[in-house]
Amino acid sequence: MTEASHTMTRKIEIEPLTPEAFAPFGDIIQAGENPTMMINQGKCGRHHDLARLDFSDGGRAAISVFECQNYTLPMKLELVERHPLGSQAFLPLSENPFLVVVAEDADGRPLKPRAFMTQPGQGVNYHRGTWHGVLTPLAEGPQYFAVVDRVGDGNNLEEHWFDTPYEVS
Amino acid sequence: MTEASHTMTRKIEIEPLTPEAFAPFGDIIQAGENPTMMINQGKCGRHHDLARLDFSDGGRAAISVFECQNYTLPMKLELVERHPLGSQAFLPLSENPFLVVVAEDADGRPLKPRAFMTQPGQGVNYHRGTWHGVLTPLAEGPQYFAVVDRVGDGNNLEEHWFDTPYEVS
Repeated sequence: MTEASHTMTRKIEIEPLTPEAFAPFGDIIQAGENPTMMINQGKCGRHHDLARLDFSDGGRAAISVFECQNYTLPMKLELVERHPLGSQAFLPLSENPFLVVVAEDADGRPLKPRAFMTQPGQGVNYHRGTWHGVLTPLAEGPQYFAVVDRVGDGNNLEEHWFDTPYEVS
Repeated sequence: MTEASHTMTRKIEIEPLTPEAFAPFGDIIQAGENPTMMINQGKCGRHHDLARLDFSDGGRAAISVFECQNYTLPMKLELVERHPLGSQAFLPLSENPFLVVVAEDADGRPLKPRAFMTQPGQGVNYHRGTWHGVLTPLAEGPQYFAVVDRVGDGNNLEEHWFDTPYEVS
């Protein structure tokens, strides 16, 4: 890599969040076209069991709330992280969009980061060990998310700082 | 009970949803005053492990989405239900309010139902075996919730229909 490429910013174009595009990285948690079953005297459709949860030996599922400052576009992407011991689901407690950044893994390093924009009614579940950006809501003011992830012993956080940051827009 | 009491409607007044009032029935999933820890370079507060999840032997945690028609006030309460094998958490994918109905248990029957109104940013987790009303969002149009509950064998649903319905307002 030349010196020039270290100082250049690399660009990532935001894509819509669809199950097909997101499948290598995790699950989109949303209502599908048809509910799996109707409950509550026909008033409620259950879209059943939408996320591959994985909390590994010695861990358990927990629900936390993240209270997160918003980001603005274009956004500099300097860091991704992953959780080797468990999946992690983000469920927005609003209809506001957030940016979902993920990357492939190549021999333990993140490769080809991609960015997706959510729609109202969409949450995501990152599969265990998937490289992803930190939580990046875009609507103004603090944004609240319910997070379903692993609680337990062990080091469940690995970070990677890019030599050359990306610009997401 | 006299014949008259069977034909009368009983009233339930809606209360604000607070951790103290709700403690006998479950957990409120919301940001508290101070985050448990700051993450993501200080941009995000984690309010950690807010719900007593319980999926009993042979069950596992799952995330589903409920797509639910709205109800209107005053609302007739004819039915409560409970899940003997697991907890059940409701996380609204919007800031719209929903009504949370719960009841004490007295020798296997629901007693003294109460109704609470949520605020933006609040979800709830019903403890295992807690009598509760079906999901009752109040904002117009279909409302979407992420639900964290138990998937597994066994009969996990018990319903109770009241002889005399309640009116919630």
